[in-house]
Amino acid sequence: MNIKPIGKRVLIKPVKEKERTKGGIYIPETAKEKRKQGIVVELGTIEEKEFPISKGDVILYTGYSSEELEVDGEKYLILDSKDIIAKIEE
Amino acid sequence: MNIKPIGKRVLIKPVKEKERTKGGIYIPETAKEKRKQGIVVELGTIEEKEFPISKGDVILYTGYSSEELEVDGEKYLILDSKDIIAKIEE
Amino acid sequence: MNIKPIGKRVLIKPVKEKERTKGGIYIPETAKEKRKQGIVVELGTIEEKEFPISKGDVILYTGYSSEELEVDGEKYLILDSKDIIAKIEE
Amino acid sequence: MNIKPIGKRVLIKPVKEKERTKGGIYIPETAKEKRKQGIVVELGTIEEKEFPISKGDVILYTGYSSEELEVDGEKYLILDSKDIIAKIEE
Amino acid sequence: MNIKPIGKRVLIKPVKEKERTKGGIYIPETAKEKRKQGIVVELGTIEEKEFPISKGDVILYTGYSSEELEVDGEKYLILDSKDIIAKIEE
Amino acid sequence: MNIKPIGKRVLIKPVKEKERTKGGIYIPETAKEKRKQGIVVELGTIEEKEFPISKGDVILYTGYSSEELEVDGEKYLILDSKDIIAKIEE
Amino acid sequence: MNIKPIGKRVLIKPVKEKERTKGGIYIPETAKEKRKQGIVVELGTIEEKEFPISKGDVILYTGYSSEELEVDGEKYLILDSKDIIAKIEE
Repeated sequence: MNIKPIGKRVLIKPVKEKERTKGGIYIPETAKEKRKQGIVVELGTIEEKEFPISKGDVILYTGYSSEELEVDGEKYLILDSKDIIAKIEE
Repeated sequence: MNIKPIGKRVLIKPVKEKERTKGGIYIPETAKEKRKQGIVVELGTIEEKEFPISKGDVILYTGYSSEELEVDGEKYLILDSKDIIAKIEE
Repeated sequence: MNIKPIGKRVLIKPVKEKERTKGGIYIPETAKEKRKQGIVVELGTIEEKEFPISKGDVILYTGYSSEELEVDGEKYLILDSKDIIAKIEE
Repeated sequence: MNIKPIGKRVLIKPVKEKERTKGGIYIPETAKEKRKQGIVVELGTIEEKEFPISKGDVILYTGYSSEELEVDGEKYLILDSKDIIAKIEE
Repeated sequence: MNIKPIGKRVLIKPVKEKERTKGGIYIPETAKEKRKQGIVVELGTIEEKEFPISKGDVILYTGYSSEELEVDGEKYLILDSKDIIAKIEE
Repeated sequence: MNIKPIGKRVLIKPVKEKERTKGGIYIPETAKEKRKQGIVVELGTIEEKEFPISKGDVILYTGYSSEELEVDGEKYLILDSKDIIAKIEE
Repeated sequence: MNIKPIGKRVLIKPVKEKERTKGGIYIPETAKEKRKQGIVVELGTIEEKEFPISKGDVILYTGYSSEELEVDGEKYLILDSKDIIAKIEE
């Protein structure tokens, strides 16, 4: 079963904090509830030039207007693309 | 008798929660009153490129500005297309 | 005497509720004061592609910014076209 | 002496209510202070296609942002063209 | 010394009320503090088609966002062109 | 060391009041804290057609959103170009 | 590991105040908490013509909507490009 975001939206899988800090990015406590990390699962109608992101990218996003849902027990979020602020390239 | 949405609107038939969870999507309690599922019945003036949805698609929508009506005892909603956040592909 | 709406407006004749329910559409009590039905009498500067409505169409509209007037004892409303949400095709 | 409206504005001569009702349009009490009638005297920079109105037309307008002035004892109003909602064709 | 307005602005010399009423326009007391008259001295970047006004024109303007200054003892105002509502042609 | 404004901004050197009034412009007390004079030092990405101003021009500006800084003891301001209302040509 | 800003954003390394004043720019106390300096590390989708900034540039920015993060113990900020007000050229 596949969730296809509609409009300028992106489906992501939130990444738990601890895994991240081992490899590099640490988000100060104060910013934590505001900004998180995730992995891109599916793209809606996104212009490559404006938002150069693809499936599998690890991204940073500010999280107020995300929509939460669970599929087969796994947690996903649907974000507005404008809330994606950066991608992390290994 | 046919209801044809006008402007960037979509006519849907809300899908009761229980039917859904059997097949996969479960919407956390906190999000429930905010976001629901439905089946597309009729499209207004929708640009395919911007909103790739068609009759029969199962969709997720955020529901504040929907218009409720009943036709021959069946409940329908008229949504703004911008409130449709994803479609569910089996 | 003819009333010609100016700009993106439409002149309609409101349809009393009871006539409607016989043939099909029933608007739940809660939505009633918000959304009503009417028949299109005259169109202002309306783009056919954006608003595919014509004289004689039965329409559903949300009614906050309508302008009320009476001509030879008959009640009419001037609506913004953006408040027309659907048309009913027999 | 001629008053030429500037921008998307129209100069009108307000029409007293009583003259009107004899010939047809009656504006319910509740709407009266909000919407009135007048005759077009002069047009500013108005696009014919968007606002098909000409000198001498009898119009209905909603009146909050009109500018009042008197010329040789006669009362005139300068309106934003967007406040003109219809014209009355005999 | 010359003051050249920048952007969509116009430099005017306010015209005292009494001079005007002799020739014709009388602005009702209630409107007076809101709307006044003046003579165009200099134009900023103004599109002739949108604002057909030139140096020497007598204009009516609504006055909330004007900038006051004195040059060699004479009072001038810098207006946004959108506050100019009409010009008076003898 | 050179400060290059970014976007639609302009770097100016504020001109003290007294120097100005000798030559001509006097800004009424009431307007003083709101509007001041200065000399253009450097331009950001400014369209000549929209804002015909150049280095060395004496300008009038309304001052709420300016950014203050000192370079080698001299005071400078970074303005939004939309706050520049006129230039003074000798 | 590389952080690539998405959309009209820029990744910078904030520059501590003291290093700067030695070479020239001093930001008055009142403006300090509002405006700071930094070095450009990475650019998102930035139009060169609109924002002529490159990696390594020293910039001045107004700081309300920046996103803070630490990578390998070093502090970085992700800014909206519209908050960058100037660049400092030695």
